[in-house]
Amino acid sequence: MAQIIDGKAIAADIRREVAADVATLSSAHSVVPGLAVVIVGSRKDSQTYVNMKRKACAEVGIRSVDVDLPEDISELALVAEVHRLNADPAVHGAAFTSPLSGILVQLPLPKHINEEKILSEISIEKDVDGFHPLNIGKLAMKGREPLFVPCTPKGCMELLSRSGVTVKGKRAVVVGRSNIVGLPVSLLLLKADATVSIVHSRTPDPESIVREADIVIAAAGQAMMIKGDWIKPGAAVIDVGTNSVDDPTRKSGYRLVGDVDFAEVSKIAGYLTPVPGGVGPMTVAMLLKNTVDGAKRGIVE
Amino acid sequence: MAQIIDGKAIAADIRREVAADVATLSSAHSVVPGLAVVIVGSRKDSQTYVNMKRKACAEVGIRSVDVDLPEDISELALVAEVHRLNADPAVHGAAFTSPLSGILVQLPLPKHINEEKILSEISIEKDVDGFHPLNIGKLAMKGREPLFVPCTPKGCMELLSRSGVTVKGKRAVVVGRSNIVGLPVSLLLLKADATVSIVHSRTPDPESIVREADIVIAAAGQAMMIKGDWIKPGAAVIDVGTNSVDDPTRKSGYRLVGDVDFAEVSKIAGYLTPVPGGVGPMTVAMLLKNTVDGAKRGIVE
Repeated sequence: MAQIIDGKAIAADIRREVAADVATLSSAHSVVPGLAVVIVGSRKDSQTYVNMKRKACAEVGIRSVDVDLPEDISELALVAEVHRLNADPAVHGAAFTSPLSGILVQLPLPKHINEEKILSEISIEKDVDGFHPLNIGKLAMKGREPLFVPCTPKGCMELLSRSGVTVKGKRAVVVGRSNIVGLPVSLLLLKADATVSIVHSRTPDPESIVREADIVIAAAGQAMMIKGDWIKPGAAVIDVGTNSVDDPTRKSGYRLVGDVDFAEVSKIAGYLTPVPGGVGPMTVAMLLKNTVDGAKRGIVE
Repeated sequence: MAQIIDGKAIAADIRREVAADVATLSSAHSVVPGLAVVIVGSRKDSQTYVNMKRKACAEVGIRSVDVDLPEDISELALVAEVHRLNADPAVHGAAFTSPLSGILVQLPLPKHINEEKILSEISIEKDVDGFHPLNIGKLAMKGREPLFVPCTPKGCMELLSRSGVTVKGKRAVVVGRSNIVGLPVSLLLLKADATVSIVHSRTPDPESIVREADIVIAAAGQAMMIKGDWIKPGAAVIDVGTNSVDDPTRKSGYRLVGDVDFAEVSKIAGYLTPVPGGVGPMTVAMLLKNTVDGAKRGIVE
């Protein structure tokens, strides 16, 4: 049976570490990091995520700056808002300074707004989501380091390292090539000296490649696509998928499942993350870590 | 026996196409594209490459702007030079305008200069080498396009497509992960819907992975490391390596070989590029193409 990686517990450890960092910043430098969480419109799922992020900030002592914008805001006005936040000077209290260390724009944006344009306008020094193409370029390039690494991919790497899984010299297979997970996690694995293969919707026979992997990152967005016989015995499997499937036995009528068939794969893999409670909690923890790291950088400069 | 891909002939075709584009720009818009080729110091190999590039410009009708700087130039002075070229206004003749469409800084730079810093200072609109991290980031990201794609990786893709090798849905293995070839060619293959694996110096058993490839890009910088029994029968093999090995039978005392054992692999592969005469000539051809494409973009704007 696979060792189940407890993402909730690891994320809680990281949040404690971040809270300790925030406390040190405050006591040693009188600095309180600030994070602007921007939401456009009133999508229910986006509101849930944004509330979660804002609450998490409060819990570790990060000042959350709430920016709630109407669904019909123009692209120009949103760009102006991002520029205002880029230039936002620190808030000063009686005994502290609170710089705006990070700006997060919750995705997806309404269809009339070009997401690429908006993300490119965020100052790379405040790009805590790590999606600016300049940060992605530096993530890709050998010998260069981005200012921020995207939260979910960084969370995957952290789950591996805190579970004692070695990456260097291992075969890693990433299922999916999205800008948000598949691509950046591939680049991180490559930087960590894994031999990386990327399979995707155009791969004729993905199971034959996944079967060779010591480390599998499942980020395809396909409910339970990865079966037990896809997995090499003992492999470490990180399931990034969050898919809702009908479940009449639940009051809600649905339940969340990953891209991995948990029941099957848990019998074969050496390590496995559950859904929920695996990668999910790590994303917010990494956002907090990126924010406090940004604030630290601000002090060094 | 493998079909030998004639890089010299394909590069000559592309240079003719570029020359035709340059002629059209000139007749229809009175525009002559300009390329600044910057060399610092007097390394023999760099001078050879730079002379080759400048001569190639002249042959297709691109105005070559020669910038020869002393070995001991300061980083600050080199940055200032790059900024001057970024801002360089068009040269006007009696009947034409010649914008500076591209800036190429020949690498390597002297040790006291930070290459990363210099390459990041080149305006992305003139970054014909495609090495700016913003261009690499856009190359990596789905749904985004860089202004320029690095010349050698682009040349590899062009050799495949002009030889009738399909990339979509194929297994591609890239040997090497340099910023100049391995990494960007992996990203290009992924964008073209190949299933991509990247093997490198930390890969314990590269041959077992290369053996699965329909397309092999050899860019490790190791003379003749890829043997016949590494190759799946019929695979397309692009050899980016240029290594000089001792050869007492030659007057020069050496000869150039690729990363592929040509004699062995040519018996197994379906397609193979020779060294020299394969990828090499494509790099300069792609530089010319990037320059004329930059000039075209300048007209549309």
